[in-house]
Amino acid sequence: MTDVKVTPEKLKELVVNKLTEASLNKEHADDVADVLVHADLRGVSSHGVLRTEHYVKRLHEGGVNPDPTFSVKESGPCSAVFDGDDGMGHAVTKAAMEKAIDMAKNNGIGMISIVNSSHCGALSYFVQQAAEQNLVGMALTHTDNIVVPFGAKRPYFGTNPIAYGFPARINKPVILDMATSNVAFGKVLHARESGKEIPADWGVNEDGQPTTDPHDVSYLLPFAGPKGYGMGMLVDIMSGVLTGSNFGPKISKMYGDYGKNRKLGHFIMTMDPAMFTDIDEFLDSMDQMIDEIHDLEPAEGFSKVLVPGEPEQMKEEKALSEGVYVTKSVYDYLTNE
Amino acid sequence: MTDVKVTPEKLKELVVNKLTEASLNKEHADDVADVLVHADLRGVSSHGVLRTEHYVKRLHEGGVNPDPTFSVKESGPCSAVFDGDDGMGHAVTKAAMEKAIDMAKNNGIGMISIVNSSHCGALSYFVQQAAEQNLVGMALTHTDNIVVPFGAKRPYFGTNPIAYGFPARINKPVILDMATSNVAFGKVLHARESGKEIPADWGVNEDGQPTTDPHDVSYLLPFAGPKGYGMGMLVDIMSGVLTGSNFGPKISKMYGDYGKNRKLGHFIMTMDPAMFTDIDEFLDSMDQMIDEIHDLEPAEGFSKVLVPGEPEQMKEEKALSEGVYVTKSVYDYLTNE
Repeated sequence: MTDVKVTPEKLKELVVNKLTEASLNKEHADDVADVLVHADLRGVSSHGVLRTEHYVKRLHEGGVNPDPTFSVKESGPCSAVFDGDDGMGHAVTKAAMEKAIDMAKNNGIGMISIVNSSHCGALSYFVQQAAEQNLVGMALTHTDNIVVPFGAKRPYFGTNPIAYGFPARINKPVILDMATSNVAFGKVLHARESGKEIPADWGVNEDGQPTTDPHDVSYLLPFAGPKGYGMGMLVDIMSGVLTGSNFGPKISKMYGDYGKNRKLGHFIMTMDPAMFTDIDEFLDSMDQMIDEIHDLEPAEGFSKVLVPGEPEQMKEEKALSEGVYVTKSVYDYLTNE
Repeated sequence: MTDVKVTPEKLKELVVNKLTEASLNKEHADDVADVLVHADLRGVSSHGVLRTEHYVKRLHEGGVNPDPTFSVKESGPCSAVFDGDDGMGHAVTKAAMEKAIDMAKNNGIGMISIVNSSHCGALSYFVQQAAEQNLVGMALTHTDNIVVPFGAKRPYFGTNPIAYGFPARINKPVILDMATSNVAFGKVLHARESGKEIPADWGVNEDGQPTTDPHDVSYLLPFAGPKGYGMGMLVDIMSGVLTGSNFGPKISKMYGDYGKNRKLGHFIMTMDPAMFTDIDEFLDSMDQMIDEIHDLEPAEGFSKVLVPGEPEQMKEEKALSEGVYVTKSVYDYLTNE
């Protein structure tokens, strides 16, 4: 199937139309489209506009509030609880990050737990909001369970991603956005289609045994065994336990129960480097670190040593000038009346 | 070589004697001994009393301040810079964590960058200080470079560990303390001694090529490729760049330059769960999560699914009642006059 090339503006407009037709308020439709197109531009199409159909279905069946009223309760000089009123997670988390940025500008640090949210898309978007203001940004979110804890047969945690953004002066911000599973399930599906074996540390079968046959994979493994397990647990404690939301297997499924609010929790954090060191020195040192890494001799098979987020930023730059590709089926969905 | 069994109290006393003989002030000698014995009790002997000889050498040669004056400068309601005055890192970080605990009790959150420190031992000790006060604790420290960035031939970052501690009500706190390399170099050394091949993702040779021969390993690989690389970079940004300390290859070597202060940076964080949810509900939910994980069916080869820190806590419990084993050579060093 051939891909269709679209300008980012046009793609965003198509997504906004679909979402507002499904009764989402215009402002939030803009936010969601912005987060989705951000992912497509960066080559992370798994979190891009292909999700629109899914969100529309949830909007139609009542599983997300199309016109929520956000509220925020400060609990201390640097902490708050942000209530998303069951709105679209993208809009919720973007607004909460704006609040966290304000807190960091006023008091140096902003830590916000987010409750009553839903799937929020690529976390890289939100940490970038902070980095663009010369702040450090971090974001965590739990997801429905598919990852087996180290030593267990069956899943307890989700792929529970972690993201950070650090600003630099000349270079683009360093942005990491990673799952705490070894790979996303999408990579298993891709191996199924291409008929290839997979490494034994990607997933396990129904019985919890590692497998190299992608068709046999029922659940995913955490990255680096106990390390990824520990980081995935951190994410669910911060997103679930600390926010008073559901955690572990009680987290509602992304695909299912479309009529019910998902009640997801997220945790975000901002930090002004000026609280700890001279801000100019910080930005210059970030550039120095990035430049020194770029100057490292690459290993066999690599042409240059990159910093986290850089491969995605290169794709973004290209897509911004040349257009972004979406699959024909996604394009057809977005353009049908 | 046979091991010698010692009571924890006796072991601590032996370490304190060695350190005070080397002119370290008594209070800091107590702190260092406490952190070292904590590691031995938990079975992490690589960070235990075997390091005493190394610290004594550094004290003798002037590479650490035996009687420092700590100072702390608050930069905001929840942030501060702690200056260790080139003292022993264990004492520095313990005192800084006490300050961070105070900040979290007063304003909900405490973020402290630590400057002018030295090797601080096992981070688990410090996050446990916070967890024992029903606070969340986190700690990061950079180390001298040995880990190759993803795609590079030669090292830029150290093993840069990350630790967290989350309190529960009935269960012990969940404590993670992990390097961002796949394994510690000690595991490579152990494989050399036992003549065994190692997995290809542990380390690379002088030319940056992965090797299964432990004798060929010059540098270590980050865990899970780009993920561990990204987390190791986070640690050095927070410990080095954000604190205005050295970073990357400029970090002074643990073994070498014994007459110079190491000027290491660390970053610690505390958080009162009550800022985000009801504290009783938080502690109960932590217990519920731990209990649910314990109840998971174990995978083949495992007898029970444990949470991070639990294997070490089991060893600690045993060692506290039965005594702790140290190697004959370490015992001889600690007991010679």
